[in-house]
Amino acid sequence: MSPPPVRCVSLTPIGVLRTPFATLADCPRNGRALNPPPLCHVELAEGMEEGLESIEGFSHLILLYWLGGDFPRLLRVTPRSSDRSRGVFATRSPRRPNPIGLSVVTLEGRQGRVLAVRNLDCLDGTLLLDIKPYIARTDAEPAAGRGWLDAPP
Amino acid sequence: MSPPPVRCVSLTPIGVLRTPFATLADCPRNGRALNPPPLCHVELAEGMEEGLESIEGFSHLILLYWLGGDFPRLLRVTPRSSDRSRGVFATRSPRRPNPIGLSVVTLEGRQGRVLAVRNLDCLDGTLLLDIKPYIARTDAEPAAGRGWLDAPP
Repeated sequence: MSPPPVRCVSLTPIGVLRTPFATLADCPRNGRALNPPPLCHVELAEGMEEGLESIEGFSHLILLYWLGGDFPRLLRVTPRSSDRSRGVFATRSPRRPNPIGLSVVTLEGRQGRVLAVRNLDCLDGTLLLDIKPYIARTDAEPAAGRGWLDAPP
Repeated sequence: MSPPPVRCVSLTPIGVLRTPFATLADCPRNGRALNPPPLCHVELAEGMEEGLESIEGFSHLILLYWLGGDFPRLLRVTPRSSDRSRGVFATRSPRRPNPIGLSVVTLEGRQGRVLAVRNLDCLDGTLLLDIKPYIARTDAEPAAGRGWLDAPP
């Protein structure tokens, strides 16, 4: 087995996410927990607009963003839906070693370098790291097993 | 509109991905392009094993990893499946401003801090950034529109 990698990689945020959620207590449990999910906005940084060409036809996007905050990064967490702690890689907790958040959002429209989307659950002002088109053939697994989420209480 | 964010964030890889693909020319077009998709391995770094507790019950995982390499980061790219260039955020090209790769893989087994998975398409030795459980209710959009991928040639 190889030695663990130790070097760091660095990222520059490419924009900001605008949501109605000003505090962690405001954030819904997931991007589909509110009905209807509120309209949110992806504000790409200046100079990045060219990267959005041809994005309009996709109905869904994957957003990757930085889950900032000063809370500790943990290897075990106790999710709200669990009666005991779980390994952090078996959860979607933000308290992970590399705090990258992921949301599958619907694309509602575009004006220049601003996208309107739904299904976000993150704080207003969250730093955006990447936008990818959602491609069902490789990204959609509707029958995926839910692990401990389906375990009896 | 807010000014674009400028600060950097840094990540420490949490492990290494082991695939049969030694060069970029060996990598399949996507993780499902080979039939059957070969068995690959996720080697978590020492000290991280506790984060895998409770992961066994999930049938699918989302892996985030660092798409290294010295090629330039572009805002427009010409994918193999396109007859013209597209905005990079409308493609899954590795030549993106923040080169984070994403694969939805099947979890085939676990031995300590090593997971056996299928559906990876990345280079052997790729640095792992995060493991998330795949949760169909928020991650699966089987009817998602394919944008320019469905456009007539």
